[in-house]
Amino acid sequence: MEGEPLSALCTPALVVDVDKVKRNAKRMMERCHQLGVQLRPHMKTHKTLECADIMTGGSRRCIVVSTLAEATFYADHGFDDILYAYSLPFDKVERCAALSERLDLFQVLLDHPDALERLRKRPLKGGRRWHVWLKLDCGNGRAGVLHSEPEALQLAQAVAEADGVELTGVYAHCGNTYNCKGVEQIQAVAQETTSFTLQFMEKLKAVGISCKSSIGSTPSCSHPVSDMGKLSEVHPGNYVFYDVQQSMIGSCGLEDVAVRVLTRVVGHCPHRNQLLVDCGWTGISLDGAGKLPTGYAMIEGHPDLKLLSMTQEHGRVEPISGPLDYSKYPIGSLLTLIPYHSCAAAAMHPVYHVHSEGRLMGKWTPTRGW
Amino acid sequence: MEGEPLSALCTPALVVDVDKVKRNAKRMMERCHQLGVQLRPHMKTHKTLECADIMTGGSRRCIVVSTLAEATFYADHGFDDILYAYSLPFDKVERCAALSERLDLFQVLLDHPDALERLRKRPLKGGRRWHVWLKLDCGNGRAGVLHSEPEALQLAQAVAEADGVELTGVYAHCGNTYNCKGVEQIQAVAQETTSFTLQFMEKLKAVGISCKSSIGSTPSCSHPVSDMGKLSEVHPGNYVFYDVQQSMIGSCGLEDVAVRVLTRVVGHCPHRNQLLVDCGWTGISLDGAGKLPTGYAMIEGHPDLKLLSMTQEHGRVEPISGPLDYSKYPIGSLLTLIPYHSCAAAAMHPVYHVHSEGRLMGKWTPTRGW
Repeated sequence: MEGEPLSALCTPALVVDVDKVKRNAKRMMERCHQLGVQLRPHMKTHKTLECADIMTGGSRRCIVVSTLAEATFYADHGFDDILYAYSLPFDKVERCAALSERLDLFQVLLDHPDALERLRKRPLKGGRRWHVWLKLDCGNGRAGVLHSEPEALQLAQAVAEADGVELTGVYAHCGNTYNCKGVEQIQAVAQETTSFTLQFMEKLKAVGISCKSSIGSTPSCSHPVSDMGKLSEVHPGNYVFYDVQQSMIGSCGLEDVAVRVLTRVVGHCPHRNQLLVDCGWTGISLDGAGKLPTGYAMIEGHPDLKLLSMTQEHGRVEPISGPLDYSKYPIGSLLTLIPYHSCAAAAMHPVYHVHSEGRLMGKWTPTRGW
Repeated sequence: MEGEPLSALCTPALVVDVDKVKRNAKRMMERCHQLGVQLRPHMKTHKTLECADIMTGGSRRCIVVSTLAEATFYADHGFDDILYAYSLPFDKVERCAALSERLDLFQVLLDHPDALERLRKRPLKGGRRWHVWLKLDCGNGRAGVLHSEPEALQLAQAVAEADGVELTGVYAHCGNTYNCKGVEQIQAVAQETTSFTLQFMEKLKAVGISCKSSIGSTPSCSHPVSDMGKLSEVHPGNYVFYDVQQSMIGSCGLEDVAVRVLTRVVGHCPHRNQLLVDCGWTGISLDGAGKLPTGYAMIEGHPDLKLLSMTQEHGRVEPISGPLDYSKYPIGSLLTLIPYHSCAAAAMHPVYHVHSEGRLMGKWTPTRGW
């Protein structure tokens, strides 16, 4: 299908604008270069080799992953310097050990003394050491040991002192930027997370420990504060696709969103003033419900329409107000959905269709599972 | 891993109790046999060969699918008499034609005159005829031509009279049973859908047309009314797994639900009175939000806990009231989630782990995409 227009695709289909992907990736690399911080891009949004190559500038080094399936997939394809940024799952210690013994630099993350104990009980072969990041909670309120608690410093010291283990870095995710609206709020959270992390690095230094530091999230790394240049790394991921959510936060403009879900009209329901489209929750996920005036997505070029009430293979579309003009939407006609959350929409698709200026270039196949 | 306990699995993992699957399938077969109606099970919930074999009693005949990917997958593995029960998507006419020319009995469905026109413009090779079901809306309010409108009869007549096309049957989905609570309400909708369908069959008969009739949904087929015996077929699907939603509707008891998502505690957050588990929306979907007092799922054996605020790879668990006793949930310990909607939970998993009485038996691999 290479060279054909997007309309040649069967729907629903996730399409990726490779020029926007490259532009988003390039801008982030330039931003990090200017800031003087190492970019370690997160793979969780797309989980493909091709996009990882674009995000790493072809180096295949220095990435973050959210699952061991991703870690293994990338390791199998020549990637290295991989950080599995998920509080060490005890059921996966042996698989982590195998990756640590196989790669030059496989890195794990922990936020609990029991996890350190698990690593100590499984020394790596060949004189290797576990490369361990400490997960710090700097106000995000999900995983991590609270930056302000004495336990955080104690755990960092315990990691640094443990046999067969190395404290590689301190890692914070400022997912609380997702509650922001606009650059000012984003930068306030970015500054707070950076300050807390740098304060923690000072505490480490005071007890004679030095290691890397990293914070990340797409909003904060799209609008970094200068203090982020004092960190070793940043680790955003979603920015390569962006989405409606990021545009609402203020991370990007809608014109930067690189993914769409194509769908077609499959039914006219004049007695309900609705259309049916062939994208249900299997095509775009249920993320975004109740968060957009236009329902589960924005419909490109049709700000007067909303997508609501999705079932497995059907979406219902209706006007925000007034009667629907069915002559504008014949059965079989294409509609283009801009996803609320590109990570969630992409997760529903076994393949992404890549295009440049509307001409198909090929397919990207993500890895799935854990 | 065969023979090992469920605790040997890495999490999150979708596990299927094969004994419950077989029991649910057997009961539906017996119910249909007693009613005197042909069961045409829907594959959309699981999309696997193994479960299709159980649902068809090994015949590999007489199934419904929701996507052409399913149709092709089953056709490739020796299944036939396949009904693609989705209002004919114009972009997939050629693929439907190929399946019609390849299988003994591939059947499509339509609800619009333009769709019939598309079939007429693509006559099948080898003297074959398109096998067409008319989709009727009997009050469900999604796809289908309204049973009460004159257009319904006109379209049925047009299909019956068209060259190269055969009116195989009339098909109604009573998805409005999903709004019911209890057997009485379910049976009222089942009766209404059945009556509307049978009335429509009478109208067809009056103009000299005879064909099959089919209605379906898991609630109605779990508690059928006797008039459903006057139909040719029924086409439920979810019943093979069931889920919390079906138990709330009254289709089944919780003890009939054959699937679980296993997850592990990966964090203690005493300052928030929460646990973190390794099941986020990639592990169970976002379906069920706001519909259960226990959040996105029920946590088996822990009615005092709820699963809320899911992100890609994390779920937050907290007590419905009072402080959390962390000693009961050590890091690494297993929790068992009963999905709100098994179709949505299963759709997130590239593989299902099958067990009998808690001992692993093997894996089922679903097909995905469209």
